[in-house]
Amino acid sequence: MPIPFSSAVAANHHQEEELRWSKSKRAIARRAFDHALNQELQEVIQQAKQMAAEVKAPYELWELEHHLTQRRKEIDRKYEYRGSRLRYVFGSLLHEGRLTEHDLRGLHEDKLEAIRSYADFLAKVDVDA
Amino acid sequence: MPIPFSSAVAANHHQEEELRWSKSKRAIARRAFDHALNQELQEVIQQAKQMAAEVKAPYELWELEHHLTQRRKEIDRKYEYRGSRLRYVFGSLLHEGRLTEHDLRGLHEDKLEAIRSYADFLAKVDVDA
Repeated sequence: MPIPFSSAVAANHHQEEELRWSKSKRAIARRAFDHALNQELQEVIQQAKQMAAEVKAPYELWELEHHLTQRRKEIDRKYEYRGSRLRYVFGSLLHEGRLTEHDLRGLHEDKLEAIRSYADFLAKVDVDA
Repeated sequence: MPIPFSSAVAANHHQEEELRWSKSKRAIARRAFDHALNQELQEVIQQAKQMAAEVKAPYELWELEHHLTQRRKEIDRKYEYRGSRLRYVFGSLLHEGRLTEHDLRGLHEDKLEAIRSYADFLAKVDVDA
């Protein structure tokens, strides 16, 4: 079934809207993004150092390797800096407590609303799981 | 071109011969093998601990991950405990100085000869490279 004309236009408009971030808003978004990413990377580093320090048997070393591979892939997936994805990225970070609304202060209310809405959705998924 | 009958018989005989390790010889081989493998694994562990302790930036952590993956694959390939492969395994370990002829003492002279011969071959390859 073809998408009705009005929906297609709405979807298109929506996408464009997503990509339209003013310069100052982009700086706020970028700073919040980098802050969360750096913090998560520091956590991975500290955890890896501790795991490595505790390794005794070879299998524990390969567990560390596997853990690092998993974390790298997870972080790659999670931190995707694209205008159209940012509501999900920030929504996840808000949900995980890696960012607060304070870090996102200055973004347009409609962006914040979309981010909050996704964070709420994730919270609901967690409860249902 | 079909393999001449005599060569095929010789090859077959050769394979069977390779697999025929008496119980006591097998114990000597196994001990030497385990000794070299455990020593190499301990080296990887110690090196990984040191690398992890020195990590500052995230890229160094992913370097450690990559290093561990490479070493795991390398060790998997190198330590293949199969009768027909042991001359190559021990030849490599002898060549790398991970085993000495002392560790292999008690094996049949023909096995030792085959092992030595492969170690010599590797030494020659190194010189030519």
